[in-house]
Amino acid sequence: MDDTDTTAAHDLLELLELRAIERLKYRYLRCVDLRLWDELAACLTAGATASYGGGTIVRTGRDEVVGFLRGAMPTRLISSHKCHHPEIDLVGPAEATGVWALDDVIIDRTLGISVRGAAYYDDRYVKVDGTWLIDHTGYKRVYEELTLLPAADAGGPAMTAHWWETDGRSSLTPTETTP
Amino acid sequence: MDDTDTTAAHDLLELLELRAIERLKYRYLRCVDLRLWDELAACLTAGATASYGGGTIVRTGRDEVVGFLRGAMPTRLISSHKCHHPEIDLVGPAEATGVWALDDVIIDRTLGISVRGAAYYDDRYVKVDGTWLIDHTGYKRVYEELTLLPAADAGGPAMTAHWWETDGRSSLTPTETTP
Amino acid sequence: MDDTDTTAAHDLLELLELRAIERLKYRYLRCVDLRLWDELAACLTAGATASYGGGTIVRTGRDEVVGFLRGAMPTRLISSHKCHHPEIDLVGPAEATGVWALDDVIIDRTLGISVRGAAYYDDRYVKVDGTWLIDHTGYKRVYEELTLLPAADAGGPAMTAHWWETDGRSSLTPTETTP
Repeated sequence: MDDTDTTAAHDLLELLELRAIERLKYRYLRCVDLRLWDELAACLTAGATASYGGGTIVRTGRDEVVGFLRGAMPTRLISSHKCHHPEIDLVGPAEATGVWALDDVIIDRTLGISVRGAAYYDDRYVKVDGTWLIDHTGYKRVYEELTLLPAADAGGPAMTAHWWETDGRSSLTPTETTP
Repeated sequence: MDDTDTTAAHDLLELLELRAIERLKYRYLRCVDLRLWDELAACLTAGATASYGGGTIVRTGRDEVVGFLRGAMPTRLISSHKCHHPEIDLVGPAEATGVWALDDVIIDRTLGISVRGAAYYDDRYVKVDGTWLIDHTGYKRVYEELTLLPAADAGGPAMTAHWWETDGRSSLTPTETTP
Repeated sequence: MDDTDTTAAHDLLELLELRAIERLKYRYLRCVDLRLWDELAACLTAGATASYGGGTIVRTGRDEVVGFLRGAMPTRLISSHKCHHPEIDLVGPAEATGVWALDDVIIDRTLGISVRGAAYYDDRYVKVDGTWLIDHTGYKRVYEELTLLPAADAGGPAMTAHWWETDGRSSLTPTETTP
């Protein structure tokens, strides 16, 4: 290959790597919110570290990280973690760093609370046997708000669909107008 | 082309296809929220199927799908549908599947309600005459919450900008501090 | 290069340009929400124009734009601006347009308000000395809601983490269940 081809090959590889890392992050968050612990474990290196709560909770190693999430995220809770704005740098042939913006929501009807916030992740990824894995994930919060939820009959929200309790189906019917 | 070139061409094509499919989804959701029904129809195959409400509402064929949305989404409502975390697989030269995470909000001031939730889409796309189209879209809800909105003078939100009623302009003025 | 190579080189360049423009937007919004005014200035052309509030506020030139944001966004406020659904077109070798969907939140505990909304951006980007910069940014709001926040002891949200006040650390501890 000549120099132009070499540069093109490098650029193409970088685009493929960025896609693979982004998809890893999307899979990890889907596994958190849908409680897919085995699939989540497969997103992590054996020595993966995680920092939650903006740094107040630190876990070391895949088993500790998954064990913490499994305990902190029962299906009694609803959670929604959405990451945005990837700023990913390949810092070596098998290593990358990633900054992401997070929006998250936790709803715990047993405790009668919601927690909503935003954060910036600083992640590290490594490529092991051809597959990108999360080697570190952690974030610092832009903000986090705790709200005590009134009961639905006192102005609080009513849960009209739930992944586990209603198999994701809504009890609402839209009002349709005639064109 | 030699083998390296063939692989590179394949990888580049895949990246282009993923971009095209993502953009199709973004256009579809923009058309939903801005009520652009003709442009929305052009995102769908003639036989497109759609499942809304986490499976409670099923429509078959482009006309039925667009007709349902047109009736369920008058401009009296505000809606915001945002999809994230694409996990798209090309499963054939002209067919792809897509998993997406959805966050959505509906505000109906006439009924005095808001509906907020999250979901996972399972979509199918096909390429027709060189253009990717949605052949099936549907989702299962992670959660959905219905809230009865108090009037603004009773602690409820005040609408300070609206796409149709204020041409998208805000009535708020920021308080500026002097550096 | 033959025709196939030329097309491939063009497609690859387009993918790289789209990535660079997306990353520029992500950096700009991170700089807004984290109040990184010098880094934000480096995202703008000298003559950059910005339209905020759905068109009610217009600023011309990098210094005016940064000056406005600096005054309107003290660290007393929490802000979260997240953009989604990029529909970017390269309209020349060094010029592009971008449509984005925005979700944003402002929380001002001094005034006791939150402002939440959604919008569509219509941006213009230019490439100067090999670097993409924002030459115009502006949006039209889908909706914007102002809510007067009750105090936390009257049912309002309690701030449990804050980028500047708690260094992004949360004061909440999850309730862990035993598997």
